[in-house]
Amino acid sequence: MRLNSERFLRDLHALRGFGAAGVGKGVIRPAFSEADVEARAWLKGRMLDAGLTPHLDPVGNLFGLAYDRSLLLGSHSDSQPEGGWLDGALGVIAGLEVARASVEAGGPPISVVSFQDEEGRFGVTTGSAIWSGQIALEEADALSDHEGIGFGDARASMPGRAETFVDPDRFTGFIEMHIEQGPVLDQANDQIGVVSGIVGIRDMKITFGGEQNHAGTTPMALRKDAFQALSDFNTRLNDRFRNVITPRTVWTIGHVNLHPNASSIVPGRVNFSMQWRDADADRLLHLERIVRDTASELAEERQISLEFGPLLGLDPVAMDPGLRNALRSGAERVAPERWRDMPSGALHDATNVSRLMPVAMLFVPSIGGISHNFAEDTAEEDLVAGLRVLAHAVGCLGQ
Amino acid sequence: MRLNSERFLRDLHALRGFGAAGVGKGVIRPAFSEADVEARAWLKGRMLDAGLTPHLDPVGNLFGLAYDRSLLLGSHSDSQPEGGWLDGALGVIAGLEVARASVEAGGPPISVVSFQDEEGRFGVTTGSAIWSGQIALEEADALSDHEGIGFGDARASMPGRAETFVDPDRFTGFIEMHIEQGPVLDQANDQIGVVSGIVGIRDMKITFGGEQNHAGTTPMALRKDAFQALSDFNTRLNDRFRNVITPRTVWTIGHVNLHPNASSIVPGRVNFSMQWRDADADRLLHLERIVRDTASELAEERQISLEFGPLLGLDPVAMDPGLRNALRSGAERVAPERWRDMPSGALHDATNVSRLMPVAMLFVPSIGGISHNFAEDTAEEDLVAGLRVLAHAVGCLGQ
Repeated sequence: MRLNSERFLRDLHALRGFGAAGVGKGVIRPAFSEADVEARAWLKGRMLDAGLTPHLDPVGNLFGLAYDRSLLLGSHSDSQPEGGWLDGALGVIAGLEVARASVEAGGPPISVVSFQDEEGRFGVTTGSAIWSGQIALEEADALSDHEGIGFGDARASMPGRAETFVDPDRFTGFIEMHIEQGPVLDQANDQIGVVSGIVGIRDMKITFGGEQNHAGTTPMALRKDAFQALSDFNTRLNDRFRNVITPRTVWTIGHVNLHPNASSIVPGRVNFSMQWRDADADRLLHLERIVRDTASELAEERQISLEFGPLLGLDPVAMDPGLRNALRSGAERVAPERWRDMPSGALHDATNVSRLMPVAMLFVPSIGGISHNFAEDTAEEDLVAGLRVLAHAVGCLGQ
Repeated sequence: MRLNSERFLRDLHALRGFGAAGVGKGVIRPAFSEADVEARAWLKGRMLDAGLTPHLDPVGNLFGLAYDRSLLLGSHSDSQPEGGWLDGALGVIAGLEVARASVEAGGPPISVVSFQDEEGRFGVTTGSAIWSGQIALEEADALSDHEGIGFGDARASMPGRAETFVDPDRFTGFIEMHIEQGPVLDQANDQIGVVSGIVGIRDMKITFGGEQNHAGTTPMALRKDAFQALSDFNTRLNDRFRNVITPRTVWTIGHVNLHPNASSIVPGRVNFSMQWRDADADRLLHLERIVRDTASELAEERQISLEFGPLLGLDPVAMDPGLRNALRSGAERVAPERWRDMPSGALHDATNVSRLMPVAMLFVPSIGGISHNFAEDTAEEDLVAGLRVLAHAVGCLGQ
């Protein structure tokens, strides 16, 4: 198979012309926007040119189907409201180039996909979630965006849709190439990350209820200060987590709502988010116990009230060993000593597709770890290195 | 001097009829509201009946003047938007009763005052601040309330105003009786607090600027999490303050504004309030150095940005030893072993009046430490005990 890296980069830049933000290489191409609809029409043409059969399914997922049962490559071509040019687009165009090169070389059949609304204008990874049965179509149709536009109405306005979904049994597996969207590869000067698994997420709101009081007349010893409870909780949790975590575990208090939030009033209540992510389901559970125990212990000590919101989350997704080893073999060939195994801390379409077939992912570096931002970028040699790893893996698997 | 405690309580309950909230004993009587204007008209009548000469000054401060140079007793009769019945009203009616009893007994001349807008509908302790020269009248006239009504317009609509302010030289000193608005006396089962000083306040906004990042893809070691910086700052500060503070020092982080405040994003910035109060000006400065040093040290360690807002505040106000000792003597007589010296953690009209003449204050307990609330209350025997202490002090000073 002979890859054409210039053609690959040309297509990638052509795709960024749809919804170009006019700021750096940034794009504005949310699902079902005019730019997204036009981009998918253009992609359809490129699929046809590559000898694939385009199929735009009822929810806007665009497949380029090979003549036979095949591997599926791809990602998504919709963007964040202020997005980067690579995000999902890279995986779609890399898949297209590999499929095209394989057709040209008489290699194995390769299909390509651009999923719809991965960035969650309506739901969460909406297109692949529907295709994989993670969410029912009727349920998805009832979702709406921040402006109140319904998913059902938005997809109805998309021209050229087929009436049927693609049968997942057409595919032997799914490989998604993506930018890392984090700083690990960039800081280590690595070119390739072979994803070991997509981490699971747990997310919970916690409320401490203390006593709202005058900040001048209430002595420290008589206070039940909700902010002090939060700070104490955070300090203890950081300490206790250290005995359980791996270097890849992450946890975040990103949302804090203090009441009444006035400088002269001892805070009477705090509601905050506690989120943790890990590739291992048992460890997620162990961390949950620490979260609950620490908060309960502290509430009892400080004689304040405690309320846990519902525990939300997604389970970790393991990568298929066969697909993953093909990627590792490619990484070792293309970027010896400049690749690593690593988990994906972010959610991807592959999470949903794993319900249907074996999946794997590979990452290329994000400069400065920046993503979901007009400034998002990756060195072109790293983009091409990723393309070559993907092609190598396809070659391994096709033999 | 023969006090009439029934008449005192009757007047106190009569005053609560103006703006009665219909919830417990609560009142709704903000400055210049219809209830406030009517309450001041009623008070004027009670002053006349007591043999005093009413004088409603240009900004709504209502004086009941004695025939000669005299002590001034009082507080304020405006309330919070959802206020208690005692707050400032207690000091006004207690002053009225003492002045009246003194007239009846042929005792020393006593004047009474109800300051306007202590509760800060427009400014901060607005009426006494203008009278004492803390703020210029023109400047105050430009202040407006939350609904955009100007102080200048509000005071212009008040009927019966005089064109002149009362000359402060008419008064030899000012004693303000008030509810504690905190839990100290109530928890100790004490009846009287003789105020040693009104604490000084320092208030500053602090901003830590870290790096906003994806909460899934950014490893803990590479984060610059603004919330973690805040929690760390709070923990270190609590620890360092312990070597400097007295049991009466208080400090509060009451306002926290996290950005972008989303559960899946590592917080990039936090702006928060840091307030501390102490009766000693040197200690306030010492604490300020610790605040600044701790924040700077932490910003350097974590390589995050740091910004201090302007330092706001009021200096501590010492109580006059002569007036204070008269109150202590009264407390020892009326409530032996059930009184204490204590600072005032809250701001009062006495803070402003101290610019003009010697001042002192006494407190009675707030049940449960509750104030600025319809539920605010004090046992009637404690109200009468306070009245008797005040009268005793006036007796001592008059001889």
